[in-house]
Amino acid sequence: MSTQQYRAKIHVTLRPSVLDPAGVAVQSGLKQLGYEGVDSVRIGKYIELTVAATDPEAARSQVDEMCDRLLANPTIENYSIEIA
Amino acid sequence: MSTQQYRAKIHVTLRPSVLDPAGVAVQSGLKQLGYEGVDSVRIGKYIELTVAATDPEAARSQVDEMCDRLLANPTIENYSIEIA
Repeated sequence: MSTQQYRAKIHVTLRPSVLDPAGVAVQSGLKQLGYEGVDSVRIGKYIELTVAATDPEAARSQVDEMCDRLLANPTIENYSIEIA
Repeated sequence: MSTQQYRAKIHVTLRPSVLDPAGVAVQSGLKQLGYEGVDSVRIGKYIELTVAATDPEAARSQVDEMCDRLLANPTIENYSIEIA
Protein backbone atom coordinates (compact mmCIF):
# COMPACT_ATOMS: atom_id res chain seq x y z
CA MET A 1 0.00 0.00 0.00
CA SER A 2 1.44 3.37 -0.94
CA THR A 3 1.85 6.02 1.70
CA GLN A 4 1.00 9.66 1.47
CA GLN A 5 2.19 12.72 3.38
CA TYR A 6 -0.28 14.16 5.87
CA ARG A 7 0.13 17.42 7.74
CA ALA A 8 -0.81 17.19 11.41
CA LYS A 9 -1.63 20.19 13.61
CA ILE A 10 -1.41 19.41 17.31
CA HIS A 11 -2.50 21.54 20.25
CA VAL A 12 -1.05 20.59 23.62
CA THR A 13 -2.67 22.44 26.53
CA LEU A 14 -2.36 22.14 30.29
CA ARG A 15 -5.34 20.48 31.94
CA PRO A 16 -7.65 23.13 33.45
CA SER A 17 -6.86 21.98 36.99
CA VAL A 18 -3.10 22.43 36.50
CA LEU A 19 -1.51 25.76 37.49
CA ASP A 20 0.12 27.63 34.58
CA PRO A 21 2.97 29.80 35.93
CA ALA A 22 3.94 31.03 32.45
CA GLY A 23 0.35 32.10 31.85
CA VAL A 24 0.30 33.96 35.17
CA ALA A 25 3.56 35.73 34.27
CA VAL A 26 2.28 36.76 30.85
CA GLN A 27 -0.99 38.02 32.34
CA SER A 28 0.92 40.12 34.85
CA GLY A 29 3.15 41.44 32.04
CA LEU A 30 0.11 42.41 29.98
CA LYS A 31 -1.47 44.21 32.93
CA GLN A 32 1.76 46.14 33.48
CA LEU A 33 1.56 47.23 29.84
CA GLY A 34 -1.91 48.61 30.56
CA TYR A 35 -4.15 45.78 29.36
CA GLU A 36 -6.38 45.68 32.42
CA GLY A 37 -9.18 43.60 30.89
CA VAL A 38 -7.02 40.54 30.32
CA ASP A 39 -7.79 37.34 32.20
CA SER A 40 -7.39 33.54 32.17
CA VAL A 41 -4.16 33.46 30.18
CA ARG A 42 -3.12 29.88 29.40
CA ILE A 43 -0.06 28.96 27.38
CA GLY A 44 0.19 25.75 25.41
CA LYS A 45 2.18 24.29 22.57
CA TYR A 46 1.27 24.21 18.91
CA ILE A 47 3.11 21.55 16.92
CA GLU A 48 2.98 21.02 13.17
CA LEU A 49 4.51 17.99 11.51
CA THR A 50 4.31 15.85 8.40
CA VAL A 51 3.70 12.14 8.72
CA ALA A 52 3.70 9.38 6.09
CA ALA A 53 0.67 7.08 6.29
CA THR A 54 -1.66 5.08 4.07
CA ASP A 55 -4.77 7.08 4.98
CA PRO A 56 -5.88 9.92 7.29
CA GLU A 57 -7.04 7.50 10.01
CA ALA A 58 -3.65 5.78 10.09
CA ALA A 59 -1.96 9.20 10.24
CA ARG A 60 -4.16 10.24 13.14
CA SER A 61 -3.56 7.08 15.14
CA GLN A 62 0.19 7.41 14.60
CA VAL A 63 0.18 11.04 15.76
CA ASP A 64 -2.03 10.11 18.71
CA GLU A 65 0.60 7.60 19.80
CA MET A 66 3.38 10.20 19.35
CA CYS A 67 1.48 12.58 21.61
CA ASP A 68 1.10 9.94 24.30
CA ARG A 69 4.73 8.89 24.11
CA LEU A 70 6.64 12.12 23.50
CA LEU A 71 4.79 15.28 22.52
CA ALA A 72 2.51 15.64 25.54
CA ASN A 73 2.52 14.66 29.17
CA PRO A 74 -0.91 13.02 29.55
CA THR A 75 -0.78 13.38 33.33
CA ILE A 76 -0.99 17.17 33.17
CA GLU A 77 -1.73 17.97 29.53
CA ASN A 78 -4.54 17.48 27.01
CA TYR A 79 -3.95 17.33 23.29
CA SER A 80 -6.00 17.60 20.14
CA ILE A 81 -5.03 16.58 16.62
CA GLU A 82 -6.13 17.84 13.21
CA ILE A 83 -5.04 15.93 10.11
CA ALA A 84 -4.96 17.69 6.72
CA MET B 1 -20.45 51.54 26.18
CA SER B 2 -20.54 48.24 28.01
CA THR B 3 -17.76 45.76 27.54
CA GLN B 4 -18.01 42.05 27.03
CA GLN B 5 -15.59 39.19 27.58
CA TYR B 6 -14.09 37.70 24.43
CA ARG B 7 -11.99 34.57 24.27
CA ALA B 8 -8.93 34.90 22.04
CA LYS B 9 -6.99 31.96 20.61
CA ILE B 10 -3.52 32.93 19.42
CA HIS B 11 -1.04 30.87 17.41
CA VAL B 12 2.55 32.06 17.47
CA THR B 13 4.78 30.26 14.97
CA LEU B 14 8.35 30.75 13.86
CA ARG B 15 8.68 32.28 10.39
CA PRO B 16 9.41 29.55 7.82
CA SER B 17 12.92 30.91 7.20
CA VAL B 18 13.88 30.70 10.88
CA LEU B 19 15.60 27.56 12.15
CA ASP B 20 13.63 25.66 14.83
CA PRO B 21 16.08 23.76 17.08
CA ALA B 22 13.29 22.44 19.32
CA GLY B 23 11.48 21.07 16.27
CA VAL B 24 14.68 19.39 15.08
CA ALA B 25 15.17 17.81 18.52
CA VAL B 26 11.59 16.53 18.65
CA GLN B 27 11.88 15.12 15.13
CA SER B 28 15.04 13.27 16.08
CA GLY B 29 13.36 11.97 19.24
CA LEU B 30 10.39 10.70 17.22
CA LYS B 31 12.68 8.93 14.76
CA GLN B 32 14.50 7.27 17.65
CA LEU B 33 11.12 6.01 18.86
CA GLY B 34 10.63 4.41 15.43
CA TYR B 35 8.48 7.01 13.65
CA GLU B 36 10.51 7.09 10.44
CA GLY B 37 7.91 8.90 8.32
CA VAL B 38 7.95 12.10 10.39
CA ASP B 39 9.21 15.31 8.83
CA SER B 40 9.06 19.13 9.03
CA VAL B 41 8.38 19.34 12.76
CA ARG B 42 7.79 22.94 13.86
CA ILE B 43 6.97 23.98 17.39
CA GLY B 44 5.02 27.10 18.20
CA LYS B 45 3.02 28.57 21.02
CA TYR B 46 -0.73 28.41 21.53
CA ILE B 47 -2.08 31.09 23.85
CA GLU B 48 -5.64 31.43 25.10
CA LEU B 49 -6.83 34.49 26.98
CA THR B 50 -9.95 36.44 27.85
CA VAL B 51 -10.13 40.11 26.99
CA ALA B 52 -12.77 42.76 27.81
CA ALA B 53 -13.84 44.84 24.82
CA THR B 54 -16.89 46.57 23.38
CA ASP B 55 -17.05 44.39 20.25
CA PRO B 56 -15.11 41.59 18.50
CA GLU B 57 -13.19 44.05 16.30
CA ALA B 58 -11.98 46.01 19.35
CA ALA B 59 -11.00 42.73 21.02
CA ARG B 60 -9.04 41.66 17.95
CA SER B 61 -7.18 44.96 17.63
CA GLN B 62 -6.28 44.87 21.32
CA VAL B 63 -4.97 41.30 21.06
CA ASP B 64 -3.10 42.20 17.88
CA GLU B 65 -1.30 44.95 19.80
CA MET B 66 -0.52 42.53 22.67
CA CYS B 67 1.05 40.12 20.18
CA ASP B 68 3.22 42.86 18.70
CA ARG B 69 4.31 44.16 22.09
CA LEU B 70 4.66 41.04 24.25
CA LEU B 71 3.29 37.71 23.04
CA ALA B 72 5.28 37.33 19.84
CA ASN B 73 8.59 38.50 18.44
CA PRO B 74 7.56 39.90 15.05
CA THR B 75 11.16 39.74 13.78
CA ILE B 76 11.20 35.94 13.81
CA GLU B 77 7.60 34.92 14.52
CA ASN B 78 4.20 35.09 12.83
CA TYR B 79 0.96 35.10 14.76
CA SER B 80 -2.70 34.54 14.02
CA ILE B 81 -5.69 35.45 16.17
CA GLU B 82 -9.17 33.96 16.48
CA ILE B 83 -11.78 35.81 18.53
CA ALA B 84 -14.78 33.92 19.94
